[in-house]
Amino acid sequence: MTTRQKLLADFIERVWNRGESAAVPEFLAPLYTIRHDPGDPWEGRTLDQAGFVERLETSRTPFPDQRFAIVHMSESGDSVIIAWTWAATHHAAIAGFPASGQPIAMSGASVYSFDEDDRLTGHWQVSDRLGVFQQLQANAAAPASV
Amino acid sequence: MTTRQKLLADFIERVWNRGESAAVPEFLAPLYTIRHDPGDPWEGRTLDQAGFVERLETSRTPFPDQRFAIVHMSESGDSVIIAWTWAATHHAAIAGFPASGQPIAMSGASVYSFDEDDRLTGHWQVSDRLGVFQQLQANAAAPASV
Repeated sequence: MTTRQKLLADFIERVWNRGESAAVPEFLAPLYTIRHDPGDPWEGRTLDQAGFVERLETSRTPFPDQRFAIVHMSESGDSVIIAWTWAATHHAAIAGFPASGQPIAMSGASVYSFDEDDRLTGHWQVSDRLGVFQQLQANAAAPASV
Repeated sequence: MTTRQKLLADFIERVWNRGESAAVPEFLAPLYTIRHDPGDPWEGRTLDQAGFVERLETSRTPFPDQRFAIVHMSESGDSVIIAWTWAATHHAAIAGFPASGQPIAMSGASVYSFDEDDRLTGHWQVSDRLGVFQQLQANAAAPASV
């Protein structure tokens, strides 16, 4: 792994999997742009680090045990791209679906860009949102016994 | 671009954008596996070249003018990954939605694997199917005047 690939793997693990908001300044440039991310409420916006932490914490609230697993990583120019799978338990309401306590799985891919100091400046991302929607619907129709 | 990156760009252009079924043997290994591709009817299957052509032609029927545009490409080990956008006109029925004559857009990413002779052996892919579904619904609710 290159320096940037190692940084990105650490960023995914610490920030997105463990939810370490305090680690955000170790990885992020002062400004971070969500260039493309269909369905993300912040798509198209440029965030400062406080704004990024707000996005992180809001995104993780329904799925606090979420885990991204990187299935492919490669680098070109100032970008590192990852393909990933994701799994979580649905712990709080999202998109009108109340918490089900059920597992949800998803896959996607993200192109992360770096500045000359190896800090993250933004991403281009796509995920299989329809798969998530179908799982939320199925879980709402047949709730787990809790 | 490396040899494999050039081959993949040509494969996308000739096979998926132009629909050149006869060009498939120039690019594909004897067997091709759809390792991961949520929503693709062939997901999980290993196809010979005739099976791949059937998948190509079936997939292109609703969207004969489809175009993938590669927005990122990088290579690692035996894989080349691309992030892409896609646009097409909805010309024939798909998933219960009759042809609308309207444009549809999508984005996704694909990890293509090569054998030692630089032939494609399969892919791992994800796309924003929910975005497509929402566009098909919107177009069905407000059909174009044709």
